[in-house]
Amino acid sequence: MKDEVLAELYATLRARKGADPKVSYVASLYQKGLDTILKKIGEEAAETLIAAKGGDQKQIIHEVADLWFHSLVMLSFLDLSPEQVLDELKRRFGQSGIEEKASRQERS
Amino acid sequence: MKDEVLAELYATLRARKGADPKVSYVASLYQKGLDTILKKIGEEAAETLIAAKGGDQKQIIHEVADLWFHSLVMLSFLDLSPEQVLDELKRRFGQSGIEEKASRQERS
Amino acid sequence: MKDEVLAELYATLRARKGADPKVSYVASLYQKGLDTILKKIGEEAAETLIAAKGGDQKQIIHEVADLWFHSLVMLSFLDLSPEQVLDELKRRFGQSGIEEKASRQERS
Amino acid sequence: MKDEVLAELYATLRARKGADPKVSYVASLYQKGLDTILKKIGEEAAETLIAAKGGDQKQIIHEVADLWFHSLVMLSFLDLSPEQVLDELKRRFGQSGIEEKASRQERS
Repeated sequence: MKDEVLAELYATLRARKGADPKVSYVASLYQKGLDTILKKIGEEAAETLIAAKGGDQKQIIHEVADLWFHSLVMLSFLDLSPEQVLDELKRRFGQSGIEEKASRQERS
Repeated sequence: MKDEVLAELYATLRARKGADPKVSYVASLYQKGLDTILKKIGEEAAETLIAAKGGDQKQIIHEVADLWFHSLVMLSFLDLSPEQVLDELKRRFGQSGIEEKASRQERS
Repeated sequence: MKDEVLAELYATLRARKGADPKVSYVASLYQKGLDTILKKIGEEAAETLIAAKGGDQKQIIHEVADLWFHSLVMLSFLDLSPEQVLDELKRRFGQSGIEEKASRQERS
Repeated sequence: MKDEVLAELYATLRARKGADPKVSYVASLYQKGLDTILKKIGEEAAETLIAAKGGDQKQIIHEVADLWFHSLVMLSFLDLSPEQVLDELKRRFGQSGIEEKASRQERS
């Protein structure tokens, strides 16, 4: 899988921190601040649900890409990294490949 | 970055398709169907917003992990793959590293 | 309470069904269709969460008004009515004023 | 319309402020606090979208009732009232019945 995409995209998003908000969409999000970024995440999550119920595969991929993209913008804005998210996912599923059902159920 | 995590996690999720819903959380989601999976995405998106506004970094990472995790479960359920999402993200940002601002703005 | 507001607003929304989408925001939502209306509900729900975490009372009222407003637009678009929603709420809480805790818990 | 339902329901919700969280669902939400109440709003908004896309009218009414119900719980928790929301809606649509299109568009 071309998973390095997340790392490359994140590096690009970080580099946008110094960009002109008039030229860069991402820089404009940074400038507007956390609430605007979070609204985008809420919006893209809603669009993912609507697309999934609609059944158009291309649209679904498009909306999940938007959702992950704005998640990365949020992480970047907050000086967090996707690596931390992937570490958390790795921790849950572990080397053993055993699903941590019990730990998940208790917090659902 | 340990990006292969997404690919490994996705392979694990695919393998859960034959698992016992009583034993596997993921298999129980598959059995309950798309609406239940989508509800989880909506729920985790809301929790991401709440955590981000709360400011607890560990909690934020936790919620984004939940959001991405259930996105992957949805993709798996619908026989789509995270590779398609990463391809879409790659396409947008391109080899040039140029942000596709115009194309994004027109659809926002 | 000036509760007749919901009924009056709903009647206004219904009357917009024949309006020019270029002149009426609501008519433009009807024209764009269900997905656009649902995206607005998702968006306003996210903004309600963000406002509530932010603590600005005026903003919270504003966002809940937006959320209820777009719920009413959806009901109108689908030929459902707020009266049906209020009847459902009334049914749950009943003449006795007893909270239907058990029935709620089983479906949460 | 039986609009007094909102006012009656709100009064009931306020009265639950002193109730035992073990007996009252609403009191248990108050005790868990704002984040839990907001998660419910996010959850019910997602379920409204999913139900609307599914097309089952009874389910749609059920989910909008849940969404409005938890909005009222939030308002009550924050010492705000549905009357303030209805006043805001009334203000927008006004005595003239003229839709405030311009003001809405500028903030969308």
